Amino acid sequence: MSQSKTAGDLATLVKGRLVGDASVPIEGIADLENAGEREIAYVDNEKFFAIAEQSTASCLLVAATALSSVAFRAPAIIEVANPKLAFSLIAQVLYPPVQREPGIHPTAVVAESAQIGSSAFVGPHACVGEYARVGTNTRIESGAVIGANVEVGNECVIHPNVVLYDGVSVGNRVILHAAVCIGADGFGYVRNNMGYHKFPQIGTVVIEDDVEVGAHTCIDRAALGRTRIGRGTKLDNMVHVGHNCDIGERVVIAAQTGISGSVVIEDDAVIGGQVGFGDHTRVQKGAVIGSKAGILPGKIVRPGVWWGIPIQPLDEYKRMNAHLGRLGQMREEIKQLKQELVELRERLKEK
Amino acid sequence: MSQSKTAGDLATLVKGRLVGDASVPIEGIADLENAGEREIAYVDNEKFFAIAEQSTASCLLVAATALSSVAFRAPAIIEVANPKLAFSLIAQVLYPPVQREPGIHPTAVVAESAQIGSSAFVGPHACVGEYARVGTNTRIESGAVIGANVEVGNECVIHPNVVLYDGVSVGNRVILHAAVCIGADGFGYVRNNMGYHKFPQIGTVVIEDDVEVGAHTCIDRAALGRTRIGRGTKLDNMVHVGHNCDIGERVVIAAQTGISGSVVIEDDAVIGGQVGFGDHTRVQKGAVIGSKAGILPGKIVRPGVWWGIPIQPLDEYKRMNAHLGRLGQMREEIKQLKQELVELRERLKEK
Amino acid sequence: MSQSKTAGDLATLVKGRLVGDASVPIEGIADLENAGEREIAYVDNEKFFAIAEQSTASCLLVAATALSSVAFRAPAIIEVANPKLAFSLIAQVLYPPVQREPGIHPTAVVAESAQIGSSAFVGPHACVGEYARVGTNTRIESGAVIGANVEVGNECVIHPNVVLYDGVSVGNRVILHAAVCIGADGFGYVRNNMGYHKFPQIGTVVIEDDVEVGAHTCIDRAALGRTRIGRGTKLDNMVHVGHNCDIGERVVIAAQTGISGSVVIEDDAVIGGQVGFGDHTRVQKGAVIGSKAGILPGKIVRPGVWWGIPIQPLDEYKRMNAHLGRLGQMREEIKQLKQELVELRERLKEK
Repeated sequence: MSQSKTAGDLATLVKGRLVGDASVPIEGIADLENAGEREIAYVDNEKFFAIAEQSTASCLLVAATALSSVAFRAPAIIEVANPKLAFSLIAQVLYPPVQREPGIHPTAVVAESAQIGSSAFVGPHACVGEYARVGTNTRIESGAVIGANVEVGNECVIHPNVVLYDGVSVGNRVILHAAVCIGADGFGYVRNNMGYHKFPQIGTVVIEDDVEVGAHTCIDRAALGRTRIGRGTKLDNMVHVGHNCDIGERVVIAAQTGISGSVVIEDDAVIGGQVGFGDHTRVQKGAVIGSKAGILPGKIVRPGVWWGIPIQPLDEYKRMNAHLGRLGQMREEIKQLKQELVELRERLKEK
Repeated sequence: MSQSKTAGDLATLVKGRLVGDASVPIEGIADLENAGEREIAYVDNEKFFAIAEQSTASCLLVAATALSSVAFRAPAIIEVANPKLAFSLIAQVLYPPVQREPGIHPTAVVAESAQIGSSAFVGPHACVGEYARVGTNTRIESGAVIGANVEVGNECVIHPNVVLYDGVSVGNRVILHAAVCIGADGFGYVRNNMGYHKFPQIGTVVIEDDVEVGAHTCIDRAALGRTRIGRGTKLDNMVHVGHNCDIGERVVIAAQTGISGSVVIEDDAVIGGQVGFGDHTRVQKGAVIGSKAGILPGKIVRPGVWWGIPIQPLDEYKRMNAHLGRLGQMREEIKQLKQELVELRERLKEK
Repeated sequence: MSQSKTAGDLATLVKGRLVGDASVPIEGIADLENAGEREIAYVDNEKFFAIAEQSTASCLLVAATALSSVAFRAPAIIEVANPKLAFSLIAQVLYPPVQREPGIHPTAVVAESAQIGSSAFVGPHACVGEYARVGTNTRIESGAVIGANVEVGNECVIHPNVVLYDGVSVGNRVILHAAVCIGADGFGYVRNNMGYHKFPQIGTVVIEDDVEVGAHTCIDRAALGRTRIGRGTKLDNMVHVGHNCDIGERVVIAAQTGISGSVVIEDDAVIGGQVGFGDHTRVQKGAVIGSKAGILPGKIVRPGVWWGIPIQPLDEYKRMNAHLGRLGQMREEIKQLKQELVELRERLKEK
């Protein structure tokens, strides 16, 4: 599965400075504690200097500070500004993504009007609908269903059993993990005395370039207009994105978070897991929202760190929790005060 | 994709009163701010009167109050009691649901003993099990798996990769979005010193007419008996419904809510997203439960609006939150009182 | 669907003592209130003795205490130590799991290098990747996708549309419900000024024997190393297990719980629904965590019952909630104290 390189090759790849033996062969990555011969690991924190010193890895990625303070056993050291990032880049080279033989599997059902890019792969039992377009080098894995008029860009990976409803649009280098669902109808109804009537859900979804979407995440189509996931944004597993949301660029959203309709999340926001957003909320650039937080409809979340249900600035949340821990004591103090007042009053009478 | 009608046709359709030019052609719907020529929009709130006045839509749906107070530019106005509802009905006509050529796709696997209704569609790679029955005009989309002895009514839409376990029953005009799972085993075990043993899960699930179920929602079969989703009920994405639940008619449940076993939710309840229900709770008709609420096992939720973990009436919840915001001040006051008491006591001594 | 046995057969099966007519035929199970002729039910609680006395079931499973205190109408009674467990075992005999004709469905796509065990079933439109191994008597249902180098043990049931990514390993007698996803990439990125770069996700997932996983649950592969689900553990629907988690044996986790990366849950823990775990938390053997709880990253959860966000011991949680309910009263008392102090001070002045 993995490829072999020399420590020197890898230093060149990550524009690092090689110290030691450039010819050491490297075949795999590992964490610092387990890395052994022909493996590379990284050290990104002083806490791990002691372990790094004992490491039997063939090569270590380290920052300048480590290099000056640790006597490494490893035969090759690569000094870089960001060892963890360099490690990630090296992993991509040592473990290249699965390559499929380009072509359309005989069991796939591809509409005649669909366009499949060169070097693309359409796997067993996948379906590609009418007038859909699939870019070059894109992999559509087994059982994925690509609706009519869908556009999927170049170099995408569409994992098994993904469903793209009709008309949605996916950019380049997008990864959709297993069973992701994009473009199902938003949850909108009009109630009268007969019950609920479906509000039209005729909009679409646009997924921009370099987005990765975790397994089983669902992104609903807009009622009118479009739901958007901005460039470079990463969603974890089982996230729910409601109709008409506009999620900016480089946003990170952890697992099981639920986003109601028409929410705006600006660029670079960081959102924890199991967070819930009321509809029409807006999260401003630079906001960080802790896991399990709850945001009331229409709220504007300003830059800073937020926590709790309903959310409040982290320091206020911590202060409130400290107060909560002293509620018993407070009640005791009030009781005590009452008692003392009674006594004082008695003494006052006596005078 | 859309059909063309005149404003007059649409006024007739929604039993509205047409003011202006009945011959204006209408091809699409849009929201008030974006609607242009050949498009229809609706105005359901005074807030939007100013925008409505400037709207370049060819036709607007408005209530009587709007008609008397706004000087519209739109060449055609339709007066109706409920503009949003009329808009929804018109959308259904202008954007008719996808029609499939009736028939069974050659890649579908349909048991010989299964019955497929006239004008039904069974898509690529779909499976229909033994003795299953699929009604007339029903669409079974790609990759959907219909188990043995399943019944699906007429005019249903079963989206891609839905799984209906053996024996479940689905009514008429039901929409199941992508990857919905109905009839998986409930979560029930008996523990002894060896570990957990599966409690039997041999019941079924009944989905009544006019239900819509969001993508990835899971409804477990009953241990014994049946799990039920009542007529006209709407579930959003990723809702979990445990074994033996009985959900009434016209209930609305937002995304990611989890319902433990044997919960009863009576007709017309409205449930927010990410709510959690302990087992054997009962939600009475007329109850509204806010998002992220938590309901303890066995609780009876009476009519009214409920909020919080554990739930309490909304006004109590708001009052409690107001108190919580003043905890710091309360502690300060207690400190102050103590100090003042000390001083008083001193002064008393002096006398 | 069900098989017929006599009450005597069933008593032998569960090593119980038969009282009454051993020849009574039993064809089905039912709950105590609904059981009738040819059906067996169980009584595991004094609360139900009155109902049990009136039961028209042909056979009842009861504990010794019931036998001595109730005058049963049922013609056959089986006395056992654990009636609910005996009922579960009997259900397995009366309702044997679906048997598939062994073999590979002609529409399945199985790599030539894959090994399929004897008596295994590979259903319609299932895929089995290169070098994958499927054990004896295992059922791979429709649309399931088994990646390359995957191992699935003996007597497993892999329900429709399950996705096993390349290289994961599943033990014996494992049940994976519909659309379970095992081995998708963990959620790990390195940020620099360009955006997020994927941290390598090259580890695997190991599911041990006798695990059952609910519909739509996702278990991510480890970044490096492995994610593990221990023997006999049971996960409910829509649980999220992050990369590098180590879940022990006989752990029970209810629906929609989310577990961040590198969490350790020791044997026999019991976890409610919608719980959220911060990364690197450790739950010790014997801990019980209530539904909707939230655990901060790095926390060690000791044995005992825990509740709340953030979690605290249940008794503290209850005490805190009692305090919260009296916040209004506390504020009133403080106001009263202030008033009384003012009065006291006035009286002191007068003296």
